[in-house]
Amino acid sequence: MQTASRLDNTPIEVPRGLSNVVVTETMLSDVRGQEGFYHYRQYSALELARQASIEEVWYLLMFGELPSPAQLEDFLGRIAGHTTLSPALLEMLIGMSRAVEQGQLDLLAGLRAALAFEGAATAVKPLYDLSRDQRVEELIKLAAKVTGIISTLHRLGQGLSPLDSRPELGYVGNYLYMLSGVEAPKREVSALSNYLVAAVDHGFNASTFTARVIASTGADVASCLVGALGSLSGPLHGGAPSRALDTLDAIGSLENIDPWITEQVMAGRRIMGFGHPVYRTEDPRSALLKEVALGFGGSRVAFAVAVEERIPVLLEQLKPGRELHTNLEWYAAIVMELVGLDRALFTPTFAAARVLGWCANVLEQCDDPKIIRPSARYIGPPAPQALPAEIQARILPQA
Amino acid sequence: MQTASRLDNTPIEVPRGLSNVVVTETMLSDVRGQEGFYHYRQYSALELARQASIEEVWYLLMFGELPSPAQLEDFLGRIAGHTTLSPALLEMLIGMSRAVEQGQLDLLAGLRAALAFEGAATAVKPLYDLSRDQRVEELIKLAAKVTGIISTLHRLGQGLSPLDSRPELGYVGNYLYMLSGVEAPKREVSALSNYLVAAVDHGFNASTFTARVIASTGADVASCLVGALGSLSGPLHGGAPSRALDTLDAIGSLENIDPWITEQVMAGRRIMGFGHPVYRTEDPRSALLKEVALGFGGSRVAFAVAVEERIPVLLEQLKPGRELHTNLEWYAAIVMELVGLDRALFTPTFAAARVLGWCANVLEQCDDPKIIRPSARYIGPPAPQALPAEIQARILPQA
Repeated sequence: MQTASRLDNTPIEVPRGLSNVVVTETMLSDVRGQEGFYHYRQYSALELARQASIEEVWYLLMFGELPSPAQLEDFLGRIAGHTTLSPALLEMLIGMSRAVEQGQLDLLAGLRAALAFEGAATAVKPLYDLSRDQRVEELIKLAAKVTGIISTLHRLGQGLSPLDSRPELGYVGNYLYMLSGVEAPKREVSALSNYLVAAVDHGFNASTFTARVIASTGADVASCLVGALGSLSGPLHGGAPSRALDTLDAIGSLENIDPWITEQVMAGRRIMGFGHPVYRTEDPRSALLKEVALGFGGSRVAFAVAVEERIPVLLEQLKPGRELHTNLEWYAAIVMELVGLDRALFTPTFAAARVLGWCANVLEQCDDPKIIRPSARYIGPPAPQALPAEIQARILPQA
Repeated sequence: MQTASRLDNTPIEVPRGLSNVVVTETMLSDVRGQEGFYHYRQYSALELARQASIEEVWYLLMFGELPSPAQLEDFLGRIAGHTTLSPALLEMLIGMSRAVEQGQLDLLAGLRAALAFEGAATAVKPLYDLSRDQRVEELIKLAAKVTGIISTLHRLGQGLSPLDSRPELGYVGNYLYMLSGVEAPKREVSALSNYLVAAVDHGFNASTFTARVIASTGADVASCLVGALGSLSGPLHGGAPSRALDTLDAIGSLENIDPWITEQVMAGRRIMGFGHPVYRTEDPRSALLKEVALGFGGSRVAFAVAVEERIPVLLEQLKPGRELHTNLEWYAAIVMELVGLDRALFTPTFAAARVLGWCANVLEQCDDPKIIRPSARYIGPPAPQALPAEIQARILPQA
């Protein structure tokens, strides 16, 4: 990669939205859109999703290797110590859930506020004032609280008391326990784990980029994670799996598949749960989650499969040559529904996976400090123009 | 600007940190580093700082023109209604100030958490679900609370009761009032106003870029402002005027100027308050604030001027040909000290100005929606490699 001279300020033209602009090198992950393949470090993300725990994958992304049994035990111990929410944080969550207007608590906005509160209340330090291991510690401290914050807010929003963390159940099992108060069956823990591991990271999306821009200034870990959560909440970011269920709801019945899809396609509307800007093939995450959903079976899953299978047939008639595949959202929504999550939890649950990927990205960004600071081209009226006479004529108090 | 085809995924190489890469067009402002000149819209920022109020400049940046008297009255009315902190927010601030470890409350982290809380508690909406005027309203709602949040947190940290907002004193006068409980003399309000107007915007810095990246996803205004505050808090962002006073403290006396500066220069250390990556000349903001400081006079100002004037003389002897000018921080710190602000308030006060510039940037970003999403190049070990045998051999619960 070139290095810019500070004195050479020639503006560099690139496509809008920095599309395809290589902003950094990474050893963390990659998406090969043409192949329908993505990986974390040197391993297939899907193989990891099937066979490894999310804690192992978090370790892999942060440290570069899968942990040995002893390393994993140590890592789980580091996480466990930080899953409990402090009384001050609990009080803040209660205050926020009371303050929310119209009884509708946006769990993702609540999570963002809670991490910002925790960052302030525990006085996290600027990244460049810390050793790498201290950075890891501060990242674990915050990230380990994410599932507890989501489940606490969700329970408060339903008028239920929050539950204490049981870290011995693991990241995924503990999350399901803190939501419901009962230990989830192994099959459900495994299904949600498959999804979450598959969602930990996915190339250089907008939220990951946000985390890295903020990290590049040397800000603290809370700044990075809170900023990334902000980007993740944006409708254009694409992480809103509950919309896929809205599609299923809108179709409603097997008989309505053809008329509904036809109407959407002919009106040029986007079908939520289908299409991805990077993959030309089927989204590999979708294939995995379809397997998981089929393992559960039932009429809901059959309906989702029927819609998926009907779309290429209809497209061939309506818009020959056009392809449309399910994306991550489609079967992710089905899987989350199967394991009993409310729709309001879908995006926050996605965030509970992605935050672990952000941790690794923040760490990597610090390894090669350089502020990310592009330029803008001014295209407004020429400056300076004289201030309006009445403002110029003002006589102001002189210091 | 070119438009990238979605199918052409050729990576585009650019300098590290996106230096000089034009990420967007803007009609808001520009910095002409070679000329030592910067402007907001079509007006010199320094002329505005001398003659216009910060509310007028906020209006100018958001709406493109300076307000007429009637427009200004209406705008001040819109702001005034949002300066009061809700009981829920006050309770959260009290909780945070109690929760802070070691009695040290980082006001900037506190401000970030408070805005995130307010965003969640008032259920702000995604930017693309709002009309432009609704976006303005939500931005005003949040930004108008910034000085109240800072002063409330600062007073709580000192064991004092928060004070009710008095918006009729104006953005700057009300801020000084809410900090101290007395109406500041006009001269002090004017001096701080000069600084704050000069600090509202300054080209495409990292925090402004962060706000725009988050806005580009369509997230809500709280996400954008909270993310930008995160970047602003980073030591490499450069907004920490209190460091300039650390330089004065370290020098300590007129006699120590030469030995201290010589030692720093010979050791290649950075002198806080001096040097800027964009300006080759004197920072124009520094010239304005020096005038303001000289109007106050006194030994502290004389000492700051003495250090400033000695540096080029010493540099000419030690490193001939090298230039080093004061940046914004140097006299900003002096001015803030002169108007009675604690050092802990310096960066938050800078943020109270910059947040108004972010509002305009968020608005502008929404006018031309396109997600900002660059790429990264994977340089890790080739993938996929087979998972370790013991992980491959695991038999997991099947759904």
